[in-house]
Amino acid sequence: MANDKQIILGVDPGTIVLGYGIIEVQKQKVTLLSMGVIQLSKYEDSLQKLRIIYEKIQGLIENYHPTICAIETPFYGKNVQSMLKLGRAQGVAIASALTNGVEVYEYAPKKIKQSITGNGNASKEQVAAMLKQQIGFEIQPKFHDATDGLAAAVCHHYQNRVTGVGVDKKVSGWADFIKQNPTKVK
Amino acid sequence: MANDKQIILGVDPGTIVLGYGIIEVQKQKVTLLSMGVIQLSKYEDSLQKLRIIYEKIQGLIENYHPTICAIETPFYGKNVQSMLKLGRAQGVAIASALTNGVEVYEYAPKKIKQSITGNGNASKEQVAAMLKQQIGFEIQPKFHDATDGLAAAVCHHYQNRVTGVGVDKKVSGWADFIKQNPTKVK
Repeated sequence: MANDKQIILGVDPGTIVLGYGIIEVQKQKVTLLSMGVIQLSKYEDSLQKLRIIYEKIQGLIENYHPTICAIETPFYGKNVQSMLKLGRAQGVAIASALTNGVEVYEYAPKKIKQSITGNGNASKEQVAAMLKQQIGFEIQPKFHDATDGLAAAVCHHYQNRVTGVGVDKKVSGWADFIKQNPTKVK
Repeated sequence: MANDKQIILGVDPGTIVLGYGIIEVQKQKVTLLSMGVIQLSKYEDSLQKLRIIYEKIQGLIENYHPTICAIETPFYGKNVQSMLKLGRAQGVAIASALTNGVEVYEYAPKKIKQSITGNGNASKEQVAAMLKQQIGFEIQPKFHDATDGLAAAVCHHYQNRVTGVGVDKKVSGWADFIKQNPTKVK
């Protein structure tokens, strides 16, 4: 398995900006396929924002065919309103990946920073600098918001490389689940 | 439109119990098609819970072919942790409906209670009693958790009957959106 080509989609599903990065891992070599952001602030309606998140992730999956989706999922926040919104964005992103048969893994922000830089409290700039060094590409300043998504993907690769089996939380694609559990789906 | 048959799925996507109710509306006559709950407490993993929510709603849509999904979406809660979980459940439920081409409408709990009983602070038992009277069916005590879902569906019908066009927040099915906006989906 370790030498197989693997495509990992990393997502940071915020409610104002969604960042994503897609990497290809082959024989431990990491290649950047795509990274970017989607601006959600221009959509006033919260349901519209959720739809955009769903479609964006669906589109990335159709274009790049990842088998893994690593999602940055903060567990704590300032207030109940922002956490509700964040939870909705996370839920839609997770649903989008799972319905497309992509395995989902969740990583806390601290774990991602720790994995990339060795420091769980590293700044966004430190994470970006380490990613640049590790993957060997230039990050344009306009993509700084995307590095959190990319960092999630790279974090999954590092976790997977060390443990061989992945991490904390994982759900396989739903198509497999439905096939294996036809009586549970009705 | 008012005389056309309309099937409405109502969902109360909690993180411990998910309640749902499905009604058929024809010539202003409301018929109960189904109601029930899904116990989520037995699933320890949060991603697993989200998958169950997604599949349950998908299954209900495949079985009953609703064109409308009315979701009870509380906006306030006790703490950030519970609101994050609730948001994730809401997000997955919304994504499940929208990907199946079902229009989604959100209703706050107070609005649903107000719509059913005339009192925004009505108890669960009062809501159940009014639903029983209005729709004409016996609610078994074991289904009391389902009445919040059913109430959301009936609330949507009442709102729709009064205004003729629906309510606050609405997103059409995504298939339509993609058809109309092919360049926005990639």
